[in-house]
Amino acid sequence: MSHHAVGHHCGLFGIVGHPDAAELTHLGLYAQQHRGQESAGICTTDGRRILHHAGLGLVTQVFDAVGLRSLRNPTAIGHVRYSTAGMSCEANAQPLLFECVEGPVAVAHNGNLTNAADIRRRFEEQGHIFQTSSDTEVIVHLLASPEFRNNGHSLPKLLEHLEGAYSLLLLFRDRVVAVRDPLGFRPLSLGQTSGGATVVASETCALDIVDAAHVRDVEPGEIVTITSAGVSSERFGSAGHERGAACIFEQIYFADPSSDVFGDNVHLVRAAMGRRLAEEAPSDGDLVAPVPNCARCAALGYSHASGIPPGRAFTTNHYVGRSFILPTQDRRDLVVKMKMNVIKEAVRGKRIIVVEDSVVRGTTTRGKMSALRKAGAKEIHLRVASPPIRHACYFGIDFPDPSKLVATGREVEEIRRFLEVDSLQYLSEEGMLRCVSMDRSQYCTACFTADYPVKVTAPMENHARQHERLRAKVSDTP
Amino acid sequence: MSHHAVGHHCGLFGIVGHPDAAELTHLGLYAQQHRGQESAGICTTDGRRILHHAGLGLVTQVFDAVGLRSLRNPTAIGHVRYSTAGMSCEANAQPLLFECVEGPVAVAHNGNLTNAADIRRRFEEQGHIFQTSSDTEVIVHLLASPEFRNNGHSLPKLLEHLEGAYSLLLLFRDRVVAVRDPLGFRPLSLGQTSGGATVVASETCALDIVDAAHVRDVEPGEIVTITSAGVSSERFGSAGHERGAACIFEQIYFADPSSDVFGDNVHLVRAAMGRRLAEEAPSDGDLVAPVPNCARCAALGYSHASGIPPGRAFTTNHYVGRSFILPTQDRRDLVVKMKMNVIKEAVRGKRIIVVEDSVVRGTTTRGKMSALRKAGAKEIHLRVASPPIRHACYFGIDFPDPSKLVATGREVEEIRRFLEVDSLQYLSEEGMLRCVSMDRSQYCTACFTADYPVKVTAPMENHARQHERLRAKVSDTP
Amino acid sequence: MSHHAVGHHCGLFGIVGHPDAAELTHLGLYAQQHRGQESAGICTTDGRRILHHAGLGLVTQVFDAVGLRSLRNPTAIGHVRYSTAGMSCEANAQPLLFECVEGPVAVAHNGNLTNAADIRRRFEEQGHIFQTSSDTEVIVHLLASPEFRNNGHSLPKLLEHLEGAYSLLLLFRDRVVAVRDPLGFRPLSLGQTSGGATVVASETCALDIVDAAHVRDVEPGEIVTITSAGVSSERFGSAGHERGAACIFEQIYFADPSSDVFGDNVHLVRAAMGRRLAEEAPSDGDLVAPVPNCARCAALGYSHASGIPPGRAFTTNHYVGRSFILPTQDRRDLVVKMKMNVIKEAVRGKRIIVVEDSVVRGTTTRGKMSALRKAGAKEIHLRVASPPIRHACYFGIDFPDPSKLVATGREVEEIRRFLEVDSLQYLSEEGMLRCVSMDRSQYCTACFTADYPVKVTAPMENHARQHERLRAKVSDTP
Amino acid sequence: MSHHAVGHHCGLFGIVGHPDAAELTHLGLYAQQHRGQESAGICTTDGRRILHHAGLGLVTQVFDAVGLRSLRNPTAIGHVRYSTAGMSCEANAQPLLFECVEGPVAVAHNGNLTNAADIRRRFEEQGHIFQTSSDTEVIVHLLASPEFRNNGHSLPKLLEHLEGAYSLLLLFRDRVVAVRDPLGFRPLSLGQTSGGATVVASETCALDIVDAAHVRDVEPGEIVTITSAGVSSERFGSAGHERGAACIFEQIYFADPSSDVFGDNVHLVRAAMGRRLAEEAPSDGDLVAPVPNCARCAALGYSHASGIPPGRAFTTNHYVGRSFILPTQDRRDLVVKMKMNVIKEAVRGKRIIVVEDSVVRGTTTRGKMSALRKAGAKEIHLRVASPPIRHACYFGIDFPDPSKLVATGREVEEIRRFLEVDSLQYLSEEGMLRCVSMDRSQYCTACFTADYPVKVTAPMENHARQHERLRAKVSDTP
Repeated sequence: MSHHAVGHHCGLFGIVGHPDAAELTHLGLYAQQHRGQESAGICTTDGRRILHHAGLGLVTQVFDAVGLRSLRNPTAIGHVRYSTAGMSCEANAQPLLFECVEGPVAVAHNGNLTNAADIRRRFEEQGHIFQTSSDTEVIVHLLASPEFRNNGHSLPKLLEHLEGAYSLLLLFRDRVVAVRDPLGFRPLSLGQTSGGATVVASETCALDIVDAAHVRDVEPGEIVTITSAGVSSERFGSAGHERGAACIFEQIYFADPSSDVFGDNVHLVRAAMGRRLAEEAPSDGDLVAPVPNCARCAALGYSHASGIPPGRAFTTNHYVGRSFILPTQDRRDLVVKMKMNVIKEAVRGKRIIVVEDSVVRGTTTRGKMSALRKAGAKEIHLRVASPPIRHACYFGIDFPDPSKLVATGREVEEIRRFLEVDSLQYLSEEGMLRCVSMDRSQYCTACFTADYPVKVTAPMENHARQHERLRAKVSDTP
Repeated sequence: MSHHAVGHHCGLFGIVGHPDAAELTHLGLYAQQHRGQESAGICTTDGRRILHHAGLGLVTQVFDAVGLRSLRNPTAIGHVRYSTAGMSCEANAQPLLFECVEGPVAVAHNGNLTNAADIRRRFEEQGHIFQTSSDTEVIVHLLASPEFRNNGHSLPKLLEHLEGAYSLLLLFRDRVVAVRDPLGFRPLSLGQTSGGATVVASETCALDIVDAAHVRDVEPGEIVTITSAGVSSERFGSAGHERGAACIFEQIYFADPSSDVFGDNVHLVRAAMGRRLAEEAPSDGDLVAPVPNCARCAALGYSHASGIPPGRAFTTNHYVGRSFILPTQDRRDLVVKMKMNVIKEAVRGKRIIVVEDSVVRGTTTRGKMSALRKAGAKEIHLRVASPPIRHACYFGIDFPDPSKLVATGREVEEIRRFLEVDSLQYLSEEGMLRCVSMDRSQYCTACFTADYPVKVTAPMENHARQHERLRAKVSDTP
Repeated sequence: MSHHAVGHHCGLFGIVGHPDAAELTHLGLYAQQHRGQESAGICTTDGRRILHHAGLGLVTQVFDAVGLRSLRNPTAIGHVRYSTAGMSCEANAQPLLFECVEGPVAVAHNGNLTNAADIRRRFEEQGHIFQTSSDTEVIVHLLASPEFRNNGHSLPKLLEHLEGAYSLLLLFRDRVVAVRDPLGFRPLSLGQTSGGATVVASETCALDIVDAAHVRDVEPGEIVTITSAGVSSERFGSAGHERGAACIFEQIYFADPSSDVFGDNVHLVRAAMGRRLAEEAPSDGDLVAPVPNCARCAALGYSHASGIPPGRAFTTNHYVGRSFILPTQDRRDLVVKMKMNVIKEAVRGKRIIVVEDSVVRGTTTRGKMSALRKAGAKEIHLRVASPPIRHACYFGIDFPDPSKLVATGREVEEIRRFLEVDSLQYLSEEGMLRCVSMDRSQYCTACFTADYPVKVTAPMENHARQHERLRAKVSDTP
Repeated sequence: MSHHAVGHHCGLFGIVGHPDAAELTHLGLYAQQHRGQESAGICTTDGRRILHHAGLGLVTQVFDAVGLRSLRNPTAIGHVRYSTAGMSCEANAQPLLFECVEGPVAVAHNGNLTNAADIRRRFEEQGHIFQTSSDTEVIVHLLASPEFRNNGHSLPKLLEHLEGAYSLLLLFRDRVVAVRDPLGFRPLSLGQTSGGATVVASETCALDIVDAAHVRDVEPGEIVTITSAGVSSERFGSAGHERGAACIFEQIYFADPSSDVFGDNVHLVRAAMGRRLAEEAPSDGDLVAPVPNCARCAALGYSHASGIPPGRAFTTNHYVGRSFILPTQDRRDLVVKMKMNVIKEAVRGKRIIVVEDSVVRGTTTRGKMSALRKAGAKEIHLRVASPPIRHACYFGIDFPDPSKLVATGREVEEIRRFLEVDSLQYLSEEGMLRCVSMDRSQYCTACFTADYPVKVTAPMENHARQHERLRAKVSDTP
């Protein structure tokens, strides 16, 4: 799947009590860059004031050595963010730092609140002003409100006002607070460095890069308060949930294969999905080739289970920088070509089983299949290691409007014709859920099934779009 | 006087109903660049939404052709700002744009509110959050509050909550509102282009550059509402003020000589002060030389009244760019030298009457006098075309702390010894007030007399400094 | 192998007679970005003058839409370059454009001249001046010299003065000339677009991206002259070479797997080397895992031949930007970690056969092996799909000094101990040469065998280093 | 006169044997920024190699603290340059650094060679290549040629090949050599710091800023060699010139008033010209107002001699940054307004004697006169403190083509009508020469008289324009 099809992803990192907190946060964000490439930010504190630096771009573009040095403090949180183009502006870069009557607070958020528009409207009625189009800003206003601000003791009560998906890091002058919503949509893990500093991150690959051991996950409905003195925990929301909403799409596409997410290693889950796919949807063929780069794990599994040798059909160009300038002619297949070249000699005259992790709009996949055909592939059998995506996500994966999903309102045979392949099969929902270890009641699979774990009324997106109509920040001149 | 001694100056410009509103605002800010070199910003509206661009730097650095084109709309306001170094950050660049329940509003402010800290504290108690250290942000919160926000009809009531100095421009989607505080600390003038568009600016030199005729000033305690349909006016505050507080320092140093301020042309006022100074404080001498560049008007007056020929003792270097890199040795007099060279041949063996407009810290003036002496001046007679500055300003001129003013606690003879000149005389308060045309009750002269026109309790500066301690924005990495 | 271990690589692209020549050259360089990431440049001509733009950085950093538009002309050549850090400066970015008595000429060069220092010394004696440290500049001086400059008719004679490796593109106002040295060290291929424009590129993957068919290679010792009227060919050097010097390292590591180089597809050659390696150096194991990313082809071959399932041991981080800022502590294994994470769950308790394409210094490989061990690998069997590198390259691959190569002066068992693996085996020279289709006399394998195809006396590098001592360009200030 | 009317000016600075040589050179260039705003460069040496940094822009833009620190060496030369827009490119920024057989040499040049095209052609015939369009590059080739390069002993012979104007600084690893052409067109002065380091600069204002005493000027036809051991001198060219060619325009407009040039202080010369003008061309009037900023000295002289009081008619805006964006309407008088505002109150109803230093194209002056008229001036009497400029300069002042000079082919009355003033008078050639102290045979006044001190055949400009046609460097992308 292409990174460009989705958005609103984010990655979080926090660390308490380490002399290189800013540098390690920088590393932790870098390791999670796949969770958000649009903006990056770090806040640090020395216990007295909070320093802040954030900007648009990759982690390595937003920070340099001088900037990091000036953030040097023992406690830090950081954030990387991917959001849709229109809303891209400095003001939306997180962590958000603000000042209320009790001092400065910084907030970093991964997920999507489904009742943010309601809360915002209520605050605006009361005379509050808003400076971003992000749903995260309502959390800031709640934190500053007289009802909830007394030192965080009332945080559980505050959180009951939030609906939807949220993994949160709050930086106060004396602590970092990590929160995961009661349904546990997004991952959040705790770790510890050899020196004893506590680390928190969206994915365990960020713990690895700072040599921190993975201690446990923050549980759904848990508030973890981290100070230099230690870690304490508190529950909120109705205890004993019968159901959870761990996002199965983190396993399929979003998380790094080296991470352990929701109790499973992502690579092993994907390889199992590939094996399962080979059983559910066998095919004759000369080689099993992944579409780069995400489907490699699934393709290995498919090859293993089918006994058909693995191969490569594409090479990848990793040097994509700022928006590429396209020539005026013949640009049709160029976007695909910019990212990958077909290895013609490996493809010509072959029956290829192509393994994809997921298909969203279908246009990029179609371009790749066309390139294979043009290079002389004899047969193309596409196998997708997840079910057809047909429904919107309101919890932090920014699929396009359902009307633009290739599988919405199309039978598999129709999709096959659109993608111009010789055969097409998807992994079943049942098969997918067999590859993960929690009970099926603990996952959100709504993008495949429309079985939404919480009722969704007025999504924030609409408000954001309206907000954008009212106020536009002209982008910085070069 | 050196520009570097003062701060918190600002310049405003607004225009309603002109196809080139953004470009003309750009010009109007450029003509008022002397009122603020630290940041510049423009907001424009098409009646539906408000576009915004602001940044740190000179007008010509913040805007380029592409940026201006993207702001194209028929109604605009703009702002240039100078503030003290520590508080310099993007977030403080005006106009401030925010969104409240009734839509977007932009605010540009020149002056200083003396009760901003009180109002802010009250808002923070109620759970409001603040994102800048500027006193202007409290105006934003008042505008959004349920009490005052119904379409501006309650603006007079809102303004009664503000104390101190404020010339304001508010940009709503359907109008620009220009406000001057009841004491009229800062200037604000209305003009009209030949095409009939209404223009408003801090100084009339900004009307000149866009070829607008100066129609009249916004009166102290007046709210002027400008729409494409026309201009309406409303009064607020207690009518019939016995006293006003027009800042006399605008005449002495701050405004451009080509501007008409508070009913007088600045150049003519300064020349009159120079003439008056020659009468009050005559001196023998071979030539009358201004300290560049502000004292030229006063020096011409002094020369004219005394009959002693005018001359030049210094040349000026106008190519100062970003902070200059000084060598490690011998840097003592370098800062002065960077800005001006002594014309040694014009000075050697001469008795020089040096005319200054004002003396703040005295260190720069001392450096200049030392340079004259080193170049061979026989005698130096320093004449200052304003009285000794001995007290703080709480209304928008950011003098250093009184303890750092050369005249605080020093008799004139002591100052003379510090500046190492042969004689030193200041213009009297009486003489100064004779050179302007309103009654003396209409001016604020507190920096000379400590006669503050409003009671000052907890100045915002203290809050700002504290705020800065809590929150620091690390400057953008290059 | 890590890209950072080698240097002096370059990629060439040229096109004649296409309205989008600059844009297509841009694409062609982008597709060859793996051949040089340090600088990029394009020259184009309209038949009258030559336009030039080059700079430090990736193709997407050096060019933007405005820049490309201003280069619009029907004929173009371009260059990407990687060179060692010290010599990195704007002046060395190619193509080099200069003006001689007959007009402007631009030169782009891939390879390394072994007698450049001699030629340069001779020119300097005659009073010529040099502005770069590149061996390419001697070609420029030869082209301008009265002896050779008459319209290129004497190009064959000129080229006989050059020794070493050179694939060249020359841009005159009326033609592009493509040259490959008589031993054919570096690849150079001709193609044709569907519209009939002639294209020339170092690798065929650059022909693919512009939809040009691969027509044939430029032969060793061939001069191809391309005008809008057509293509003509001429031979130089002693005809009928018994031996050639096609760089085998292009096949092993340097070229893109999708390219056809020296008559073979790179992916298929590497896969064959992997298969051959499995036969020569079998091992027990639970999975065959490539070290990312270059060894994937060889690992697939090894897995296929051995029947041991393929797997992944690492994930890769593709978001490396400008030089990363490392924390002050614990940075030992960080450089490796920045580029890849171990998939711990896939490694723990496993016997892993790791396939590498080549090992240069050994330090990076050692870091990767250490990471596998730390993640719990039970056994590590390293298999390298090429022989041990023990000798310098003077023809365009910038290996470090032989004393820094891990295999220099070490037996395989010693290397195994240094890399801390359970077993280590290399592909034999014999085996390597079986995987390519030309006779062994046609390849340069000197880095493995010290069998240099031309005598090397005073390498240019020494001169370059000396040059650098004499002249240093301080890098551009930000 | 406007700075924008002329070009090809340059300023030189050099220092030998000072620990802060780079920083002092930076200061010395900054003080001479009025001699060239387009590019700046510094070369320094530690006796072993030469470091180089140059770029487009003001001194403060090209250098920052890090850049200067990396140039730290005890011996340095620097250059500022103004040239016409078309030829503006990095490659033309001086000093030019190159390497010849005897090592690196850097060259900085002020002036214009009249036989550069001839020399260049000869070199090109011999196979030399050229990389800039600057006449300075031919000096570089001469220095490298076997005939002249033996350690500078043959420098006198080399210099006999040059015709035209040249003040030169050459930086070798062990010395700085300062040269002034035999006719002495451009100034060049020697100074000494209190610590004993020798300094050389185009103008003495650059000696002042580094606290160096002005020792003497480099004489026409003198080569001064400066090492840490001391200063030695040598003559070249035919000794005992009957005539010299000191550029009188340096006195009128170009040099800083604080500098001593050709034995006279510039301010005093200009004031004398003003006095002389008052005698030659008296006028009734209410005030004498200079056109900002260059004419201030002359206006003071005119006022003094005439007894008519000095005044100000304009204020100046010093905040001009990068090219200003003009609105689409009413831009007629805007360019003038961007730089100065009329002080309307000082002008209305007055008879104004406006003093200008010189008039080139006349368009800017006409705009200023129109602005005065519009502001209500009753009468405008323009007095120009130099004769009418009617002829080209081939020696370093880049006047526009004579056909574009307002005085070419126009009688004074016609010029008056063009400028729309009530009366117009110029200073006579005789009067001008009375204000300087050398004999009239020692000055070049060709721009007024067409009496060229050397025969001019094929000016380099033509070649430069042709060169530009052949080769264009696309400007750096932002």
